[in-house]
Amino acid sequence: MSLVDKLKWRYATKKFDSTKKIAADKLEYILEAIQLAPTSIGLQQFKVLVIEDESIRARLREAAFGQPQVTDASHLIVFAAEILTPEHGKKYIDHVAATRNVERATLSGFEDMVQGAITGRTPEQLLVWAQKQAYIALGVLIAAASEQEVDSAPMEGFNPAKFDEILGLTEKGLTATVIAGIGYRADDDPNSKLKKVRKHKDDMFIRI
Amino acid sequence: MSLVDKLKWRYATKKFDSTKKIAADKLEYILEAIQLAPTSIGLQQFKVLVIEDESIRARLREAAFGQPQVTDASHLIVFAAEILTPEHGKKYIDHVAATRNVERATLSGFEDMVQGAITGRTPEQLLVWAQKQAYIALGVLIAAASEQEVDSAPMEGFNPAKFDEILGLTEKGLTATVIAGIGYRADDDPNSKLKKVRKHKDDMFIRI
Repeated sequence: MSLVDKLKWRYATKKFDSTKKIAADKLEYILEAIQLAPTSIGLQQFKVLVIEDESIRARLREAAFGQPQVTDASHLIVFAAEILTPEHGKKYIDHVAATRNVERATLSGFEDMVQGAITGRTPEQLLVWAQKQAYIALGVLIAAASEQEVDSAPMEGFNPAKFDEILGLTEKGLTATVIAGIGYRADDDPNSKLKKVRKHKDDMFIRI
Repeated sequence: MSLVDKLKWRYATKKFDSTKKIAADKLEYILEAIQLAPTSIGLQQFKVLVIEDESIRARLREAAFGQPQVTDASHLIVFAAEILTPEHGKKYIDHVAATRNVERATLSGFEDMVQGAITGRTPEQLLVWAQKQAYIALGVLIAAASEQEVDSAPMEGFNPAKFDEILGLTEKGLTATVIAGIGYRADDDPNSKLKKVRKHKDDMFIRI
């Protein structure tokens, strides 16, 4: 099956089979896809929580309007946007220089651009910018999980402040942004029988 | 090659081979993947411009700091966020009812939820919400293009107001949000030789 066939197979899973766990190598594969997702200037301005712990998930579920996917999926993924500081920019340039084995000084023009992108934004703009990048990675997660025939349920319906508190994110400069349950659909998930609803191509694409 | 292998193969293309065009069926495949990308409540609150026209792309390039990918990629994709109104919500429910062949009245609870999600947001919140959904679709585009060995260059560096003006988006309630050139790398693109920089998994994932 092609990726498009796999994306047709997937749907917003409502009821996961809580007894089925994603195999360790498959989970690492999906995380690697997230790691490879592109981000603005390559800054990867978010972190990704991979949560199995049952008691924490029970608390998170309460902060997510009781949605069962939070506890019943094999793993809960929380994308947490990172408010960048100039220190993050400096570390990023260090990492680029080390990875590509180049003198740091050769990156000074790039560093100015990176630092300008950080210091030129208000805290609110930094947050929205980081959140958008996390959503790219969510799209890549959806694709990679589907390719592996792993079900996924992205969710915005949760209380970010409560998630931040439960997960201790605020003190790390992080904000819970979007979450996804990943795992395997229950045989009796009624959502799996529903016909997928999408705009027709003519309503969605403007060709010029 | 797996999707992860393909994501390792891809990179932020700087120099496209402007003589190479994406075959029509391959382009439609990539657009279908975008169409299948999940969005909040299924609203697909953005439109996607698929631009080949050379003269328009020349003007867009000027509004994108002269970045060559705008004109030299096979196609320029512009994700334009849509500011939803209650009328959009109504049409969406009509479409769900028609697609799933159910009485519209059976969807009244869902419709209330959809309309609450629209009317409960300020125009600014509606915009950011729509933009985030477009970024999910961008992630799926990146994955699908890579699977098809089509290169991609997502870009935030452009003037949205100028794009909106050139493309006549404002009067349609649309705002240019993020763009991507898709096509084929030039043999001499220096970026293709650079080692990919990504955070180590230990710096990116928090396992609980």
